Amino acid sequence: MDSFSDADRDALYRIMRTRRDIRHFLPTPLPPDVVRRILEMAHAAPSVGFMQPWNFVLITSLTLRQQIKASFETRNAHEAASIADPARQALYTSLKLEGILEAPLNIAVTCDRRRDAPFVLGRAPMPDTDLFSTCLAIQNLWLAARAEGVGVGWVSILDKKAVETLLEMPPGVQLVAYLCVGYPTEFRPQPLLQEVGWKNRLPLDDLVYHDRWGERYAL
Amino acid sequence: MDSFSDADRDALYRIMRTRRDIRHFLPTPLPPDVVRRILEMAHAAPSVGFMQPWNFVLITSLTLRQQIKASFETRNAHEAASIADPARQALYTSLKLEGILEAPLNIAVTCDRRRDAPFVLGRAPMPDTDLFSTCLAIQNLWLAARAEGVGVGWVSILDKKAVETLLEMPPGVQLVAYLCVGYPTEFRPQPLLQEVGWKNRLPLDDLVYHDRWGERYAL
Repeated sequence: MDSFSDADRDALYRIMRTRRDIRHFLPTPLPPDVVRRILEMAHAAPSVGFMQPWNFVLITSLTLRQQIKASFETRNAHEAASIADPARQALYTSLKLEGILEAPLNIAVTCDRRRDAPFVLGRAPMPDTDLFSTCLAIQNLWLAARAEGVGVGWVSILDKKAVETLLEMPPGVQLVAYLCVGYPTEFRPQPLLQEVGWKNRLPLDDLVYHDRWGERYAL
Repeated sequence: MDSFSDADRDALYRIMRTRRDIRHFLPTPLPPDVVRRILEMAHAAPSVGFMQPWNFVLITSLTLRQQIKASFETRNAHEAASIADPARQALYTSLKLEGILEAPLNIAVTCDRRRDAPFVLGRAPMPDTDLFSTCLAIQNLWLAARAEGVGVGWVSILDKKAVETLLEMPPGVQLVAYLCVGYPTEFRPQPLLQEVGWKNRLPLDDLVYHDRWGERYAL
């Protein structure tokens, strides 16, 4: 099997470091071969018991996206209202948190929890590993998109049940991520929430322990 | 910000395609700078509201690993007994499903669900997005390891509560993944479960829909 050069490794690390959560998109359509490559890489992700529990619902319908955007608006107003501190609330409401209508493509990534029932190798002891596997595919998708110059924005401010109903998802299938996908106006140097002073990146050394919770490890 | 060459993109795609779930490890210790780079890349993952809910508990204690291996053995016997078909059961019991003692390093990746309470931007509508973010970090870790020639094996056949207790994790912190990490004896050309005939990779085209569940999309 392949081994990787320093240049290969550096490419991976630059892709990871410059990946962003994108909310500002150009209307430029995505070439079909780019979409295919991004989905192929998502599908190359690991999964519990090789379950491959994911599906990708590509959403282009304007009507559907307007309905989903309305779900965002309702939830987002509710979120803003729940912030006690006025300065934080003002900062929150100044942020653009989705690109549902501007992005040329939306992708709902789902987890089919019924797949391979009744026995998925390794799943019973930790039943949510099917959802976790789906997230591994999402990160592959996100990184592949970045390497193609394509932006991805994950919208979690939604009524999950409403979106599942709009997409006619059957019982046992669950929405994991709603993604806006397209060429971004830019990849900014820092995560937006860091740039605007919402939150800073934590020091890695504070997050690494040795043999038990709270025991610091000198990396 | 960076844009990426065809060579960069191809490197990413080869890393994704040749990443494997590893259960056979060499005893060779991992250089500290390699461990640091892998964790830095995990920490570069996206997270809901920039929450960065992850911690990494690096486990080297042999006693601890023996206790965790015992938890695997108990659960694994239970899993094997639950398989009705004798041929599938025999295939299952023939598989090596962990490398807890052989790998020079184990890493418990956790999600601190209390972090940034009471308000994490974007989390309230989909509360499990903190767990999902932790999984994005795990996939970064797995890919970075592959680029370094290091293997990762995710062990889900465990008593989660027992491992959380052994690692002295406080209430509100949850084990997401238990990883065995080290140089592998090899990176095999195919996923092991495909190679041994447990399950094949699904055709991508069967997994892609358009605007609603079940509506096929010609990629």
